[in-house]
Amino acid sequence: MHQLTIVKIGGKIVENSESLTTFLKDFNLIVGDKILIHGGGRSATDLAEKLGVETKMTNGRRITDAEMLKVVIMVYAGLVNKNIVAQLQKLQMDAIGLSGADINLILSQKRPVKDINYGFVGDIKEINAPALLDLLKQNYLPVIAPITHDGNGNLLNTNADTIAAEIAKAMAFDYNVRLIYCFEKKGVLLNEADEKSCIPVLDFESFQQYKTEGIIQGGMIPKLDNAFQAIASGVKEVIITCASEVNTGKGTYIQ
Amino acid sequence: MHQLTIVKIGGKIVENSESLTTFLKDFNLIVGDKILIHGGGRSATDLAEKLGVETKMTNGRRITDAEMLKVVIMVYAGLVNKNIVAQLQKLQMDAIGLSGADINLILSQKRPVKDINYGFVGDIKEINAPALLDLLKQNYLPVIAPITHDGNGNLLNTNADTIAAEIAKAMAFDYNVRLIYCFEKKGVLLNEADEKSCIPVLDFESFQQYKTEGIIQGGMIPKLDNAFQAIASGVKEVIITCASEVNTGKGTYIQ
Repeated sequence: MHQLTIVKIGGKIVENSESLTTFLKDFNLIVGDKILIHGGGRSATDLAEKLGVETKMTNGRRITDAEMLKVVIMVYAGLVNKNIVAQLQKLQMDAIGLSGADINLILSQKRPVKDINYGFVGDIKEINAPALLDLLKQNYLPVIAPITHDGNGNLLNTNADTIAAEIAKAMAFDYNVRLIYCFEKKGVLLNEADEKSCIPVLDFESFQQYKTEGIIQGGMIPKLDNAFQAIASGVKEVIITCASEVNTGKGTYIQ
Repeated sequence: MHQLTIVKIGGKIVENSESLTTFLKDFNLIVGDKILIHGGGRSATDLAEKLGVETKMTNGRRITDAEMLKVVIMVYAGLVNKNIVAQLQKLQMDAIGLSGADINLILSQKRPVKDINYGFVGDIKEINAPALLDLLKQNYLPVIAPITHDGNGNLLNTNADTIAAEIAKAMAFDYNVRLIYCFEKKGVLLNEADEKSCIPVLDFESFQQYKTEGIIQGGMIPKLDNAFQAIASGVKEVIITCASEVNTGKGTYIQ
């Protein structure tokens, strides 16, 4: 099977044009088919602030009311997505920017209200793998914004890490998939203050132990939950690393 | 040759969810391949106002400074485009939202500064017709936002009427193209106050005469310039009509 590299980048990389350019040049060097999934990070929060829309977060996840939904659609699917696509075109990569509504790529359902009402947040129901495969076969580079749709005309805000994992799983039937999560640190760290404490390989048992010990905590936990689910569903490699190591193979390998 | 209907809709239709839904249902009834091109209208002006970005217009064309460019990218390629795509998906039309940067669809160059500095406005250099044909062959419905790119990483604001005409011309080699401009009136009117004064057929000579007489004026002139250029370049039909007549065949026929 062919190799497919799926890279997820977070807000901090995309909001700075210099760091984005550097990242995209490194990304360009990755051989084989590629998919890029991005968040929007602070740009959405900044726009919301300017518009007087209050940003509410719970466990690192945004509460999305109707006004905030408009903001994230504009920033993620508009400003960030099209900026990345234009930069990639400059680098001769034939990018196509997509939300989950385009080509019915990601069907989701509004998260049911239990303890918390997350608002217009979508939990993924289905990835349109055949349509994505067709784009890859035509040598397009899909650039995916974390906005999905419910098939009933509604757009929904969806976690980009989860989208990356779900797409990786859906592509694993046809490709050897390598999923790379880029964030601020060099990998999963034993000591958050020490970049040299990066765990080279992390298995599920150690993950559980580190969680119990409080060594792994906060936003890293849902990211790793996604990573382990991807591995369990046939994704060949999941790597947690920083953007500048996207093509070096360095970082934490999940197994 | 197969029939291709290219419809351009303006701001007033897209910014009201009720009128958009009604329009999309009518649009759905058009048989054969279709492309939808949209403006953004007042939504961009509204967002700019809220953000304290001043809207400057000259001859009905927006002056686009760096801040306004961000606004139009967010509104046109983000909010409006993805909302239309989600609504079309609901109606079982497999829409794909595109800016000119995606699949390198519309290459433009920043308009040279002469008497007026239009700012980040792009004049179209080339339509990627083969890529668009491929999407149509795959039964996708392209939904195009009036944002283009210069191939050097820069996004540019581009007039949606002109995009519609250029795409119609580029598709005329492979299709019998019908180009429909939807705006607020029932067609080109002899008397702006009287919807019944719609000119059924308008040829180039009469257009020149009406211009001289001041009967046709303002924003209608560049629209008709686009329309006549399209006809001169092999587009079979150009119709100027209102959104509610998109599938009735009523309006002003350009010949």
